[in-house]
Amino acid sequence: MAWNKDFESAFYPHAVAIVGLSKSATRDNRVWSSVWFILSYEELGFRGRIYPVNPKASEILGYKAYRSVASIPEPVDLVIVSVPVPALPGVLEDCIKANAKNIHIFTAGLEETGEEAGRELAKEVRQIISRGGLRVVGPNCMGLYVPEAGISSFLDVSTKSGPVSLISQSGGHCNWFVHHGQDYGIYFDKVISYGNAYGFDSTDFLEYLSTDPKTRIICLYLEGVKDGNKLLRLVQNIHREKPVIIWKAGLTVAGSKAVASHTASLAGQQAVWQAFFAQSGAIQVFSMEEMAEIAMTFLYVTPPRGNRAALLTFGGGNSVAAADVCSREGLEVPTLSQDTRDKLREFIPISGTSIKNPLDTGFMYMDLSLLDREINLITADPNIDFLIVIPSLDEIRTKSDEQVDSVMSYLSELALAKPNGKPVVITFYSFRSDPWERKMRARLLFELSNKGIATYQNLNSAARALARFVRYHKSPQ
Amino acid sequence: MAWNKDFESAFYPHAVAIVGLSKSATRDNRVWSSVWFILSYEELGFRGRIYPVNPKASEILGYKAYRSVASIPEPVDLVIVSVPVPALPGVLEDCIKANAKNIHIFTAGLEETGEEAGRELAKEVRQIISRGGLRVVGPNCMGLYVPEAGISSFLDVSTKSGPVSLISQSGGHCNWFVHHGQDYGIYFDKVISYGNAYGFDSTDFLEYLSTDPKTRIICLYLEGVKDGNKLLRLVQNIHREKPVIIWKAGLTVAGSKAVASHTASLAGQQAVWQAFFAQSGAIQVFSMEEMAEIAMTFLYVTPPRGNRAALLTFGGGNSVAAADVCSREGLEVPTLSQDTRDKLREFIPISGTSIKNPLDTGFMYMDLSLLDREINLITADPNIDFLIVIPSLDEIRTKSDEQVDSVMSYLSELALAKPNGKPVVITFYSFRSDPWERKMRARLLFELSNKGIATYQNLNSAARALARFVRYHKSPQ
Repeated sequence: MAWNKDFESAFYPHAVAIVGLSKSATRDNRVWSSVWFILSYEELGFRGRIYPVNPKASEILGYKAYRSVASIPEPVDLVIVSVPVPALPGVLEDCIKANAKNIHIFTAGLEETGEEAGRELAKEVRQIISRGGLRVVGPNCMGLYVPEAGISSFLDVSTKSGPVSLISQSGGHCNWFVHHGQDYGIYFDKVISYGNAYGFDSTDFLEYLSTDPKTRIICLYLEGVKDGNKLLRLVQNIHREKPVIIWKAGLTVAGSKAVASHTASLAGQQAVWQAFFAQSGAIQVFSMEEMAEIAMTFLYVTPPRGNRAALLTFGGGNSVAAADVCSREGLEVPTLSQDTRDKLREFIPISGTSIKNPLDTGFMYMDLSLLDREINLITADPNIDFLIVIPSLDEIRTKSDEQVDSVMSYLSELALAKPNGKPVVITFYSFRSDPWERKMRARLLFELSNKGIATYQNLNSAARALARFVRYHKSPQ
Repeated sequence: MAWNKDFESAFYPHAVAIVGLSKSATRDNRVWSSVWFILSYEELGFRGRIYPVNPKASEILGYKAYRSVASIPEPVDLVIVSVPVPALPGVLEDCIKANAKNIHIFTAGLEETGEEAGRELAKEVRQIISRGGLRVVGPNCMGLYVPEAGISSFLDVSTKSGPVSLISQSGGHCNWFVHHGQDYGIYFDKVISYGNAYGFDSTDFLEYLSTDPKTRIICLYLEGVKDGNKLLRLVQNIHREKPVIIWKAGLTVAGSKAVASHTASLAGQQAVWQAFFAQSGAIQVFSMEEMAEIAMTFLYVTPPRGNRAALLTFGGGNSVAAADVCSREGLEVPTLSQDTRDKLREFIPISGTSIKNPLDTGFMYMDLSLLDREINLITADPNIDFLIVIPSLDEIRTKSDEQVDSVMSYLSELALAKPNGKPVVITFYSFRSDPWERKMRARLLFELSNKGIATYQNLNSAARALARFVRYHKSPQ
């Protein structure tokens, strides 16, 4: 199908019906269930009306319950259906009767079970949807998270909105991204978990998001797609304006079998998808972590002129490893110009350091005025397009815990100021593994990225994301 | 050169001289310096004698200081030299005079600087070493950590010994491994950081470790090697008895330049090293993390009969991702037999689960008797060689914090018992990112691996290590 504008009221609903809540539902049920929809709406401060539908209850969790969707006294913008699978046809008929056509089907257990019963029911459900003109997200999915509208399918998520949207066949991956995304400074406009895709498919949501002014970066987790040509055409049209980051899962034999058991999608052939990524302009990733890294890069890094990295690190072994990692990802690590090296040697001793690039000058973190002088010289070098700073947390800490704070606030000002017009990104290294280090690392990742500075879990992540980012901007497409 | 047995007293010294300690050295100097050698020896409870050598001091950190190595009143088993580079020749002459021939040269600033002065001095130092018959570790390195002997080049390390030894040109990588190794349940017999290798090279230490009964697993970090044929021959001879895990760094163009600035080694050509890994039987890794993962696997996993993994996970998206990850690393994820599936369906509901493999049955963690029944059926399946369990921490936590403990103690008993004779390894997943999750994950990784259960940071690590482990055991070499 194509996008249907009438569904848009479901993203910002005034009235939501939830069908399938148990009359004995309690607020302390934190295990993944339909109770989540009420708890999460409440957490996000949803300002519309919530209508539980259950013919056996008069009240659920303090909300007046209704016998049917049709008996709700106002037009319903979104119906969330979480009944057991045999009850699904009846509920959908009720929705048709009520003229409540925007439906999120949470219920699972259809053809993805691989059982005859599931397949039969799937056929019936699809016929009802088609006959009734229902606009369906799902089945077998978590549905919608729109912080601005106060609606969510996950608990303990941020109330803050952002310019990233996610379209995903997996609710688990959405759950991961809405929580872990915060560590990357990523907040969402819309998150759409759509499972088996009986109604809208990824391409329909993509069509919508491509013109949604609040979404600047589009992320997709795909197991299959119904209209591959449409996907190609859409991505080709919008990827220059809005980067499209895609994790196509199930490309291996084992993965493709797992897709059949999950959303019953056709995972498709590896070669077809290779051609898709070569032609579409989409940025391909292979995990949610990679998706988060590259989305953060698009959010917070100004495109550098090229792929030539300067690496400011600590230790000889780390320098070699850093150069290898960047090189394997397709970044260049050029030797600094003789002029830059002469100027660095005026204040950096020879013994135990290297200033060619990678720069092994860890002790500079002890004196921020020297560090500043060093970074200004590096970024002024004509051989360099951007700088990756890799402080060793334990070395800085040997001076004092406060020194870590001083170094990080210096680096964050620097990154925001872009010395000599060159992007600066940050990652960390620790020789030690202890509670201090883990806590500090988590704090710095969160705080720096939330200030708008691209801050990566490790150099592999940084190099991988930056290489893709540069390729995207250099590509002729 | 070849291994010299007279150096072995340096691994278990009775008397150690430290040349180059400042007379104003203080115990609160925790920044990487020669003071570390005294502090770390004290931390490890070194029971021999420590002799600071400094003609300008009578006492350093409470130890009587000596004018020269020759003036020390007993034979010295190990001299640690950390003087500024121009003083190096004089100190080495002093050692020759004292007949103290086991030397660790910490001092850096020789040919790795790329400067004429460094190259000249390097030549002189090499001549003195050769003429005096000195047995040298270094220069430009951290030297020796032997917990059993109470000697160390790093602070805050474990006093516990173990069957792993590490030979590394980088002191930083040693520092990482001796700290992070504990999270993998890895403890060391000997750690040798040997830098520029003027005396012993990796092959010499390898020769020694191959017959050292305390070392069962050998890890190497190499930037270059002087005698590649010797390395090949040695590894071929010993890798069946003692696995040899090698990270050869500097294989990219940028990495090879960084090697020149670090230990001035010749990094060599990629093709030559590819042939080495194909012929030697060594296990190749590309980071310290990978080295730790595979070393832990050799320590704690009984070789499975083949590469067919069962994956016990949570969530459909995670199942697809898990299958893809294992498949890409070269593991098979076969569908469970019909018989096993029929038996599982007797107590696992259809809706929202998958039992084909990967098994998406996360809620089983709520009832350990059901989980046990499930795991016994999976491991009994003739299509399966081993099991990777991937609990979702946040799902288990929704029941109670204590439930995490119950699940983990159940899983650790199970892994140690090897149900149906099949290895069980563990890794984790978390939808959430919060302090509880980070703390719990760190605790579980440490505790489980220290019980002798292979426990990985994530599924990528587990799949990568297990695939290499199976290949090692299947290889005809």
